[in-house]
Amino acid sequence: MPFTRISLNAGKSPEYLKAVSQSLYEALVESFEVPKNDNFQVFHQLQPGELVFDRDYLGGPRSDDFIHFHISTGKPRTREVKQRFYRRLVDRLKQSPGVRPGDVMVIIAESPYEDWSFASGICAATPEAVVS
Amino acid sequence: MPFTRISLNAGKSPEYLKAVSQSLYEALVESFEVPKNDNFQVFHQLQPGELVFDRDYLGGPRSDDFIHFHISTGKPRTREVKQRFYRRLVDRLKQSPGVRPGDVMVIIAESPYEDWSFASGICAATPEAVVS
Amino acid sequence: MPFTRISLNAGKSPEYLKAVSQSLYEALVESFEVPKNDNFQVFHQLQPGELVFDRDYLGGPRSDDFIHFHISTGKPRTREVKQRFYRRLVDRLKQSPGVRPGDVMVIIAESPYEDWSFASGICAATPEAVVS
Repeated sequence: MPFTRISLNAGKSPEYLKAVSQSLYEALVESFEVPKNDNFQVFHQLQPGELVFDRDYLGGPRSDDFIHFHISTGKPRTREVKQRFYRRLVDRLKQSPGVRPGDVMVIIAESPYEDWSFASGICAATPEAVVS
Repeated sequence: MPFTRISLNAGKSPEYLKAVSQSLYEALVESFEVPKNDNFQVFHQLQPGELVFDRDYLGGPRSDDFIHFHISTGKPRTREVKQRFYRRLVDRLKQSPGVRPGDVMVIIAESPYEDWSFASGICAATPEAVVS
Repeated sequence: MPFTRISLNAGKSPEYLKAVSQSLYEALVESFEVPKNDNFQVFHQLQPGELVFDRDYLGGPRSDDFIHFHISTGKPRTREVKQRFYRRLVDRLKQSPGVRPGDVMVIIAESPYEDWSFASGICAATPEAVVS
């Protein structure tokens, strides 16, 4: 159910983006109670001047490899689950494609089930959404 | 009051985008309690590798014509209104520009009136906002 | 703690974007209870047909210089603070780079502290997040 908008400076290889995508997906499944194949992401690659961030505010130091994840979720999670996910995400990204933990920022935004429709005009909160 | 971010693969014609825009607007007015002319949208056209989605999770099958609507709203709506809107949206998009229902995904995100300013620094929750 | 997505038509100079960025940052610090250096923004520059807006709905008239600010916040603010911020933002933007107040639209979206991680997998709601 998460849908993630990923913002980072343009200039990375297709392999790099693919590794970011895969690490995010794995972290979500492993530590954020996300079912397999529930994978929806958009990358926003920024040109010079389009990505503005402080290098040191509450963390960092941040480099030009700064990545911002904006994750819309449907199911509420506990603070413990969120904390575990943040750690798992930076671990995964450090392994592949090799993002420094200080460069990873995350915001979660919750919308209840009824605010989601995965396809075909079916509200995710209705019984028919679970069938098939 | 809705503001919608629309994400889809790049490569469609200007006419296609215009039809998506118009069908969304009409579905909002017809079934989501949106006043006429309350029309604010941003299109995000993705390059190869930038739009990641599962072809079959909870719906689909999704094709390269997958479209994601992220709708920020001000007024709370009932589940019935949301459900009606999801159906109307896919109906409209099927008619024009001819999007398959399985390719349409929607997330709604609510922000209360006071979190909106339409113009000129006026908070949408203040009486002066209603005066034209 | 705010993170802002700024949408406007492409074609402005780097200096213009920089002035928008700076005016937003100053308005947030001056009137929205935001600490110094808490500065995170993404610009989305739209091509023809990608930015759809009504010229007169609840304000305006809006021109091709229309700018939309989508601000994710962590700390709740009162309606008075929000109202003050909206006014300060249009004042600042009018001064630099010279945006007409009618062209400025804002949406705020709140996510609680625990939904933020600024860096390194640390949840912003945990005590360690406050330790620099």
